[in-house]
Amino acid sequence: MNKSYIALCGGVGGSKLADGLARILPPDRLTIVVNTADDFDHLGLRICPDLDTVTYMLSDLAHPQRGWGRADETWACMEVTKQLGGDSWFQLGDRDLALHLYRTQRIKEGASLSAITSEICRRFGVEHSLVPMCEEVVNTIIDTEIGELSFQDYFVRHQCAITAHRVRYEGLGRAKPSAAFEAALSSPQLAGIIIAPSNPILSIGPIVGLAGVREAIAERRIPVAAVSPLIGGKAVKGPADKLLAELGYEAGNGGLLAYYGGLIDGVIIDSRDEVIGANPGNLTVSGDILMKDAQDRIRVAQLCIDLLSRLT
Amino acid sequence: MNKSYIALCGGVGGSKLADGLARILPPDRLTIVVNTADDFDHLGLRICPDLDTVTYMLSDLAHPQRGWGRADETWACMEVTKQLGGDSWFQLGDRDLALHLYRTQRIKEGASLSAITSEICRRFGVEHSLVPMCEEVVNTIIDTEIGELSFQDYFVRHQCAITAHRVRYEGLGRAKPSAAFEAALSSPQLAGIIIAPSNPILSIGPIVGLAGVREAIAERRIPVAAVSPLIGGKAVKGPADKLLAELGYEAGNGGLLAYYGGLIDGVIIDSRDEVIGANPGNLTVSGDILMKDAQDRIRVAQLCIDLLSRLT
Repeated sequence: MNKSYIALCGGVGGSKLADGLARILPPDRLTIVVNTADDFDHLGLRICPDLDTVTYMLSDLAHPQRGWGRADETWACMEVTKQLGGDSWFQLGDRDLALHLYRTQRIKEGASLSAITSEICRRFGVEHSLVPMCEEVVNTIIDTEIGELSFQDYFVRHQCAITAHRVRYEGLGRAKPSAAFEAALSSPQLAGIIIAPSNPILSIGPIVGLAGVREAIAERRIPVAAVSPLIGGKAVKGPADKLLAELGYEAGNGGLLAYYGGLIDGVIIDSRDEVIGANPGNLTVSGDILMKDAQDRIRVAQLCIDLLSRLT
Repeated sequence: MNKSYIALCGGVGGSKLADGLARILPPDRLTIVVNTADDFDHLGLRICPDLDTVTYMLSDLAHPQRGWGRADETWACMEVTKQLGGDSWFQLGDRDLALHLYRTQRIKEGASLSAITSEICRRFGVEHSLVPMCEEVVNTIIDTEIGELSFQDYFVRHQCAITAHRVRYEGLGRAKPSAAFEAALSSPQLAGIIIAPSNPILSIGPIVGLAGVREAIAERRIPVAAVSPLIGGKAVKGPADKLLAELGYEAGNGGLLAYYGGLIDGVIIDSRDEVIGANPGNLTVSGDILMKDAQDRIRVAQLCIDLLSRLT
């Protein structure tokens, strides 16, 4: 029986591990479930930053350094948007715009986010199953020292520079896992769940907070392995360490484990970091988890599959 | 007392004469009223083809030959739209897209088309008053041999190649002239109205069909001069001659005069064309009305002002 896997991921770090997994697992053995709680409307368009980042990575269109958008991008529309006095704090490239226009139009036509994501993936040559965590609108709200902020306000406009007190996911209580996520979770082939090195609070929190997800994992005793987004106590990209600390967790792998609590059975940390001391019920594996190129991504993906086989 | 003028216009031919008039009249003496009955929604964006063409022409951004869009344009977004299987029959350039995104966003925010047009003009450096004919949505519907078609379906998709039986302007009965159009019509300075060499049925018909426009002109005895869109019996661009013939008018300047009926007091036709024989109550002036460059546009604009002064 062919084992299948679920990867839970956000944007940058998540897209890298998703790509590594897609390079070692055939399409019918991997479901990539992507956070949609930082989706938002901008210039009248529906933007799904994490879905887009993963889509571009898997279709080999991603910008190799920037962490968002396409490599072959131009900015003519943004230049004129600035001239017109329109919102330009969120950069939208000319090619990228086509994706947002297409998605926004299909939403108006009544298509589900899952269906639209699948159409975009097919057109971009992505063979693996890339699915939104849910169809419903969920909004991550960050309560900060200057009041409540939407995710993009906090992340892009304020560059995460202000102190957060609390994070909540507006609408999550009414949301259900998407049909493809649900199907992957209940598949008899499911051999493990991989939590990508994405921000635990901003990217993974909404996915595992969906109704029934933790219960399904616990009930079926599906092994769960997380890759740490931290190296040397710092997030490779983004505010994971800062946010963990601000919300009362240790700003390091200890804090990560505390946040994930009973959810995970094993964790892969970087070999440069100390193995977490008190770690009952968790298997910690060390390795080089920095992903700069496709070979790195394959290596970390293989570490995940190996760890899951040890956890079964 | 400074005399002021109103120009009624559609897209290509209209934009050229509007530009000529703007080059010889100061901003406070010219109101350019633009047809909006071929505005439509495309890829979720509100597109106003005639307003855009005139805006680009007056801001010196227009493509010199094509008759629509900008000179400095790229097509990256359209290429990806095609790849995604999205609608690509109506070409939207990357820079042009910014204008449609801005307008669509402002409409959602509740701004009027007049206010938005004025914002865009200010940002693009257009000093003359460019105003939509009305704020309400009006849709030109062409009843053809294959059934009723929207304007863009007829004009862009079918390239006007099919036979029209009738043209109607859906929503015109509920529409009122925009405030700026109304104000220009009732200004004591108003010395004349210029009908640009646009398609009489598709571009001018909706404007003069607005409630009260013909009445205001007749009541105040404002002289009206039209520039023929035909040279040698053929439209310089577009289907004016073909459409006149299909709707039962002569396919030439005689048909043009019959269509405008009692509305106009004088007409400027090309010197290559025969002066229309039976033309009671109309002063016909001949000149070189082909507008290839700014000098041509100034010359035809001056012909209009001269004719109007003779008609006063």
